[in-house]
Amino acid sequence: MGNADYDHQYNPQRVEIPPPKPLLTAVKSSVRETFFPDDPFRQFKNQPATKKAVLGLQYFFTILEWAPRYNLGYLKSDLIAGITIASLAVPQGISYASLANVPPIVGIYGSFVPPIIYAIFGSSRDIAIGPVAVASLLLASILAKEVSPTDNPKLYFQMALTSGLFSGILQASLGFLRLGFVVDLLSHATILGFMGGAATTVILQQLKGVLGIKHFTHKSDVVNVLKAVFSQYHEWKWEPAVMGIGFLVFLLVTKYFGKKRPSFFWISALSPLFCVIIGSLMAYLTHAEKHHIGVIGHLKKGLNPVTVSDLTAVFNSRHLAVSIKAGFISGIIGLAEGIAVGRSFATVKNYHIDGNKEMIAFGLMNIIGSFFSCFLSAGPFSRSAVNFNAGCKTQVSNIVMAFIMMLTLLFMTPLFQYTPHVVLCSIIMMAMIGIMDVPAAIHLWKVDKIDCMICLGAFLGVSFGSVEIGLSIAVVISLLRLILFIARPRTLNLGNLPNTSTYRSIDQYTAAKNVPGVLILQIDSPIYFANSNYLRERISRWVYEEEDRIKSSGETSLQYIILDISTVGGIDTSGISMLEEVKRNLDRKSIQLVLANPRSEVIKKLDTSKYIETIGREWMFVTVGEAVEACNFLLHSSKLSPGEEKAKTPEDNV
Amino acid sequence: MGNADYDHQYNPQRVEIPPPKPLLTAVKSSVRETFFPDDPFRQFKNQPATKKAVLGLQYFFTILEWAPRYNLGYLKSDLIAGITIASLAVPQGISYASLANVPPIVGIYGSFVPPIIYAIFGSSRDIAIGPVAVASLLLASILAKEVSPTDNPKLYFQMALTSGLFSGILQASLGFLRLGFVVDLLSHATILGFMGGAATTVILQQLKGVLGIKHFTHKSDVVNVLKAVFSQYHEWKWEPAVMGIGFLVFLLVTKYFGKKRPSFFWISALSPLFCVIIGSLMAYLTHAEKHHIGVIGHLKKGLNPVTVSDLTAVFNSRHLAVSIKAGFISGIIGLAEGIAVGRSFATVKNYHIDGNKEMIAFGLMNIIGSFFSCFLSAGPFSRSAVNFNAGCKTQVSNIVMAFIMMLTLLFMTPLFQYTPHVVLCSIIMMAMIGIMDVPAAIHLWKVDKIDCMICLGAFLGVSFGSVEIGLSIAVVISLLRLILFIARPRTLNLGNLPNTSTYRSIDQYTAAKNVPGVLILQIDSPIYFANSNYLRERISRWVYEEEDRIKSSGETSLQYIILDISTVGGIDTSGISMLEEVKRNLDRKSIQLVLANPRSEVIKKLDTSKYIETIGREWMFVTVGEAVEACNFLLHSSKLSPGEEKAKTPEDNV
Repeated sequence: MGNADYDHQYNPQRVEIPPPKPLLTAVKSSVRETFFPDDPFRQFKNQPATKKAVLGLQYFFTILEWAPRYNLGYLKSDLIAGITIASLAVPQGISYASLANVPPIVGIYGSFVPPIIYAIFGSSRDIAIGPVAVASLLLASILAKEVSPTDNPKLYFQMALTSGLFSGILQASLGFLRLGFVVDLLSHATILGFMGGAATTVILQQLKGVLGIKHFTHKSDVVNVLKAVFSQYHEWKWEPAVMGIGFLVFLLVTKYFGKKRPSFFWISALSPLFCVIIGSLMAYLTHAEKHHIGVIGHLKKGLNPVTVSDLTAVFNSRHLAVSIKAGFISGIIGLAEGIAVGRSFATVKNYHIDGNKEMIAFGLMNIIGSFFSCFLSAGPFSRSAVNFNAGCKTQVSNIVMAFIMMLTLLFMTPLFQYTPHVVLCSIIMMAMIGIMDVPAAIHLWKVDKIDCMICLGAFLGVSFGSVEIGLSIAVVISLLRLILFIARPRTLNLGNLPNTSTYRSIDQYTAAKNVPGVLILQIDSPIYFANSNYLRERISRWVYEEEDRIKSSGETSLQYIILDISTVGGIDTSGISMLEEVKRNLDRKSIQLVLANPRSEVIKKLDTSKYIETIGREWMFVTVGEAVEACNFLLHSSKLSPGEEKAKTPEDNV
Repeated sequence: MGNADYDHQYNPQRVEIPPPKPLLTAVKSSVRETFFPDDPFRQFKNQPATKKAVLGLQYFFTILEWAPRYNLGYLKSDLIAGITIASLAVPQGISYASLANVPPIVGIYGSFVPPIIYAIFGSSRDIAIGPVAVASLLLASILAKEVSPTDNPKLYFQMALTSGLFSGILQASLGFLRLGFVVDLLSHATILGFMGGAATTVILQQLKGVLGIKHFTHKSDVVNVLKAVFSQYHEWKWEPAVMGIGFLVFLLVTKYFGKKRPSFFWISALSPLFCVIIGSLMAYLTHAEKHHIGVIGHLKKGLNPVTVSDLTAVFNSRHLAVSIKAGFISGIIGLAEGIAVGRSFATVKNYHIDGNKEMIAFGLMNIIGSFFSCFLSAGPFSRSAVNFNAGCKTQVSNIVMAFIMMLTLLFMTPLFQYTPHVVLCSIIMMAMIGIMDVPAAIHLWKVDKIDCMICLGAFLGVSFGSVEIGLSIAVVISLLRLILFIARPRTLNLGNLPNTSTYRSIDQYTAAKNVPGVLILQIDSPIYFANSNYLRERISRWVYEEEDRIKSSGETSLQYIILDISTVGGIDTSGISMLEEVKRNLDRKSIQLVLANPRSEVIKKLDTSKYIETIGREWMFVTVGEAVEACNFLLHSSKLSPGEEKAKTPEDNV
């Protein structure tokens, strides 16, 4: 850091202050960046009107985009995949309907209408549509607090439909308004913990069916469910327990086998249907009711009934608010899960999923579904994975599944009347075991402790409180982390990397050296009201700690503080007041404040607030290196003529 | 950017990965940075035990710190200041008590006990303690919804005392737990708008007294108050109106005069007392009641009664929750105002105020106050400004004021029984006009539009809704701004500043030039769950926009993306997944991803999550300059031997 030939080198870049943009332009560009980061209208540019119309139609009706390119080879693959997921759809649909406390047949309805709607609007080629476990549980846990599904099943069902409608309205609105970031607030860690907690409570609830308990709790938390299970031990029956555990072991073994050998995925895909058939046969042949094994009973033949009158019934009742609440919460969860599933398969196959378009597709599917006896549908992970493994090529596999469901509804429902409840319990438990991802949670712990806390918070909240408590805990911790990042930003001491003009954190780079007489600080976040008091105190602590250190070591006394504000992306009026106070405090100690690399957003505000005049434009540099050079030069010359240093500025020396 | 002598120059710094800290150390250091940024125990280090004990006592009993240095010169100044603020304390106390709907005498009690407590614990030398207008209004607006102060004055008063107790408990706890940042959430802009709105509603409410209206609304919003004023126009009386407007004009003129000539501050300081005396005399002599001019009436002689039984009465009632709520909200507002007032005078006089200690002092003063008939006290701006202008030196001016209040309570209360209400209205209106700071709001608009929106939101919310609505609007906008900063970070395109190895935003520096074949992007915030989807889409848009540009201009095709992550202060697991996906997407396009200047927090996580292995450690550089140099070298050599560029890495060339 020699100053020998400093004079002819000294020619620092000027920090540029961009001219202020007109307010309207600024607002327009920030709206564009906020809501249209992917620039969805890009392909519309410079196109003739007819082309624009076609593109516009294709944008909403995604089917118009891929249908023209559809061919026989695709159809073959989609047929196989569609048949495979249809075999899974019946037992899953009936099972998840029981989770949501709605009639079993409704679960099958949900695999008929919604997949067709999704095939028209949706952009994921791999997702398989149907009822989902966690959102069903969520729906039930909110609605059952208001209306008992056993005492008043008709009203309860109407409310479930209404919730589905509002889920759809919310989902579609989020898509149209391009508010996808609401879903982003549910981070991967949140979903992971939430799913784990939900799976735990669902598995424990299945003990009711497996042990054949008649009197059970309506609560869903671990403590109450376990209490209910063990307090009713005199009701325990061995027959359903043997049957349930047997089927569960069978399902787990086939699943394990299917995972080990991906080409045999169909074994695990077909095993639930196999269990249903074997279970129903056993029940029919052994007169199951006599052995304490409950069966589903009569299922109505025929396609989805129209349910507009059921929706209007709730609209005029005092239960509307709860239905809306349940719809919003379960709709968000369904959406988050569905988009995550769609995205992960799209990444593997290397195509793009437009989150906002997906939301619209999910929304329309649930709105239309609610008119046709369907409760909330989404993209269950298990079914989508089977679809993917079965080699689906396009959304046609969903149409194939819907067609088979139609045939099932028209002709085959009587076949399921002997299906034992306990088989459904086994299927649900197997699916839930698949949802719990312990290795992923361990990975979180290794990489990011706070993400792990978020995950654990969601898990414990859902397990021991309720789904809403779990979600709230996770979202609050997540947001607190964001706010804390800004409220308590790191301030770093920078030092010079030897033989360079680069300055880096002394904590990170062991080779970095302090510059005598100069303290270089970097502030690690925007300077807003939430941290301006903190930063003022932290900076003054840096200063007196440095002064203490210098006093004990006898180095050059502290004469310059360089604030590297490269990393300060924004500032508000509280932040500017803080900088003014820092400047005043340093002036009092005869320490000169120097700013390095103010960014355009920041410097514009420093300019309009006259802070630049306060500090002097000559005390702002484009790089830390140039700032240090200027300070060093002045330190050097002040040693030659002591007492003058405060009068001098870098400008005097150019 | 010549590559001529590249080979012997090419020796980039290595990005250092700091060793992982043990969990406990990491937690300890982050707790220290979060809660003890000012290192309050610094002075305790390396001191003998007795010295430590003395310092500890001084830390809590601030009086022990300054009392030993107290001298006669100080006493003279403090006496003058104390007498001056005492003259203001009587009319202000009675006025603000009427704002809070408690008996007038309580306002005088509030200037006796609390100032003494504050003088013992508080660290501001300029604040003058007493009831404050806005917090009183806030208290009344929350409590009056539950219990009517006219129908049940005793219960209402008990609840006000209990609220004061809980204000104190909250304030002291925030201080002890070092949670001062809760107060920081009320930014300057929030307080400004909030005060303006509160002042507006208070001024309009005074129309009741000024116009002599008997039937008035309990609501405080502008619309309802104006409705009440104009619907009762048949009740309007000219006598109080003339008197009120006369006094108001007098007060404003003296205030203006005091501001113009600071040495005559005592004129504006004494004018409220003068109004009270003149007004009372006039009322006494003219038999005011006959002229529709209401007077305060009998005031009880004697010092503050002990009110422990009143507190316990509320503790056992169902009104406890509302009292706690009112206490918490008004306590936070009182605290924010008080700390802001203390800080601004401390800045002028150049001494330091410890926010956490102030909170403890405020808390103790309100806790103890509530045992002695005092409702919420804080540091009113007007009285503190008078104290400051009168030349107070220490907290003794508060003790002087308390002593005079004691004399007033013991001997002089009968003097105030003829004080007309309308005089108090004029005093309140004058104080409220002083609170409204329009130039500051205009300054906000000039410097920071969002701060101005926050201010306006608080103002309109308080004026047309309620104090709670106003506060909520402002806090929500403030927090949304923080979250939006992270959820929608800017991504900047960097270019080379000619003749340097510095890279800066092309938007800010007109001279900055793109490097052919290389796209340099800077991400402007931590990469968290809230922005990882956004950043993925935004980065891919940068890439295809650059590709489009290159296609039309025929430049070197895009081969390197350098992500400058200097400004990325943190990352979570969602952020790492995002980077993984970006890497995969670029690989598919045969574009190499290069990272520049990863910071220690980030690189540690990239390391544990194996991302560094994915990207290759040789593709990480300490500076953008070095990254560009390496890319340029490879671009250059790939032109000599085409087809090989993807196999090459910078390592091969060292």
